[in-house]
Amino acid sequence: MTKSTKVNAAILIIGNEILSGRTQDTNTSTIALWLNSIGVKVQEVRIIPDIEDIIIHTVNKLRKSNDYVFTTGGIGPTHDDITAESISKAFDLKYEIHKEAYKILENYYKPGEFNEGRQKMIWMPKDANLILNPTSGAPGFSVENVFCLPGVPSILKSMIGGLKNEITGGEPILSCTISLRTVESEIASSLTEIQNNNKEVEIGSYPFFQAGKLGVSIVMRSVDQSKIDVCSSKVFELANKKKIEVVSR
Amino acid sequence: MTKSTKVNAAILIIGNEILSGRTQDTNTSTIALWLNSIGVKVQEVRIIPDIEDIIIHTVNKLRKSNDYVFTTGGIGPTHDDITAESISKAFDLKYEIHKEAYKILENYYKPGEFNEGRQKMIWMPKDANLILNPTSGAPGFSVENVFCLPGVPSILKSMIGGLKNEITGGEPILSCTISLRTVESEIASSLTEIQNNNKEVEIGSYPFFQAGKLGVSIVMRSVDQSKIDVCSSKVFELANKKKIEVVSR
Repeated sequence: MTKSTKVNAAILIIGNEILSGRTQDTNTSTIALWLNSIGVKVQEVRIIPDIEDIIIHTVNKLRKSNDYVFTTGGIGPTHDDITAESISKAFDLKYEIHKEAYKILENYYKPGEFNEGRQKMIWMPKDANLILNPTSGAPGFSVENVFCLPGVPSILKSMIGGLKNEITGGEPILSCTISLRTVESEIASSLTEIQNNNKEVEIGSYPFFQAGKLGVSIVMRSVDQSKIDVCSSKVFELANKKKIEVVSR
Repeated sequence: MTKSTKVNAAILIIGNEILSGRTQDTNTSTIALWLNSIGVKVQEVRIIPDIEDIIIHTVNKLRKSNDYVFTTGGIGPTHDDITAESISKAFDLKYEIHKEAYKILENYYKPGEFNEGRQKMIWMPKDANLILNPTSGAPGFSVENVFCLPGVPSILKSMIGGLKNEITGGEPILSCTISLRTVESEIASSLTEIQNNNKEVEIGSYPFFQAGKLGVSIVMRSVDQSKIDVCSSKVFELANKKKIEVVSR
C-alpha cells in the first residue's frame, strides 16, 4: 500500500448494556486512538443490540464500505454472546469448533475447568484467524477484514497490540492541539478563515472547563505536518493579535 | 399512545473528536438512561464526522426508522458546527435566524458580547422548536422527531430535563441487577435455560472485576416487573444450588 493511500475503518459496538446506558463505552476511544497511530481513520461507529439479524446486516454493510471493521462484545461464554455465530452467518461460513482455539483454552485452564460454558468460546467461523488474548486466554478472531474483539476494556486493550501486523495503515494522521484561554465565539470568525485557507487540515474547536476556567482547544489534524504547522502558526498569530493567553500547546 | 406501545429512539453523535478517540463520548449513556426512565428504548447509536452529506443522509435514515432521534454536537459558534444547517437541508427547510433564539441570546449576553460568532447560534431550520439551555444560554432545537442537543456533556445534561413533555414514552423499561461472585462460564448453561424459559425478559450477563475480585452482574430488563421477578428468583435458586455468593441485588 503506498504512503498516500487513505485507509479507513468502522467500529461496531455490540451490546445491549451500552444501548441501555448501563455501561459507558470506552472501547471506541481505545480503538480509534490506536488506529490513528497506525494511519487508519475511523469514519463511523455504530452501537447495536445483541440481535442476530441486526449484527449480520450491519457487519455486511460496514465491511463493504470500510477497509477494516472492528467489533467489540459478544464473544464470551453466555447465551447473549452471539457475535461469533452471527459473523459466521454474515460470511456464510460454517460455525464450528476452532482446533487452535481449543488447544489454547485446553492448555490455559486447569484440568476440569474447561467446562461447557468455556467451550462455547472455541466455536467460531470456519478457518477464522485467531487474535491472541494475553489476559484471559479466550482468543478473538478475524474473518477477511472484520476483527472481533471482546467487550471488556482491559482485555480488549491487551489484545490490540498483537494486531499491528494484520493491519496495513496509510499515512499516520498527525495532530496538534493548542489550548487558548478564551471562548469559542471570540475566535470563531478567525478560525473559519484559517480553515477556509487550509482545506487539507481538519480543524476542530472544543470548549473546555478546567480548574474553574473556560478555554478552547483547537485541534488540527492532517497527514502533512507542514500543513499543520502553517495552521498552528496562524492560531498563535490570532492569539497574539487578540491578546489571548496560550494555555498549552 | 397506549401503554403497551413500544417506543424507540436512535442517538446520533456528531463529531470528529469522538471518532478520533480524542474525546470519550459520555452523552450516549446520559441520554439512554434518561430515555429508559421515560419508556423509550434506544435501538441504535451512530457516531459520524462533521460532514454535511453524511449528517443529512444519516438523519434522514434514522428519523424514518425511529420514533425519536437525538443528535449531539455541532451547534456551537465555530466553523465545524454544522448540525443546524445540515438538519435544515435534511428537512428541506430554510436555514434562517430564529427570532425567539435571538431574543434569548440578546438578553443572555451583556451589551456588546452578542458578537458575530455567537450570532451563528441563532441560525436554525425555519420554525424549529427551541430546547432551552439553563446552563449557557444558547438553545438546542427540534424539528419533527429530531432533537438537536449540544456536545458538551454538562450542558446537555441540564437541557434534557426540559424535554420530558416533548417525548411520549411507552411503558417504562424496568430492570433488576443481581451480582454474583462467580465467573460467566460457571453459570452460562443455567442462564441460557432461564433465558429460554423467559423470552420476554432480556437477560444480560456482564463480568466485572472489583476490589480485586471477579464477579458477574446479571441484568434482567422487561416492561413487566412480575416477569423480572420470576427470572430473579431463578437466579437466586441457581446461586443457592451452586453455592455462589450474592454480592449485591
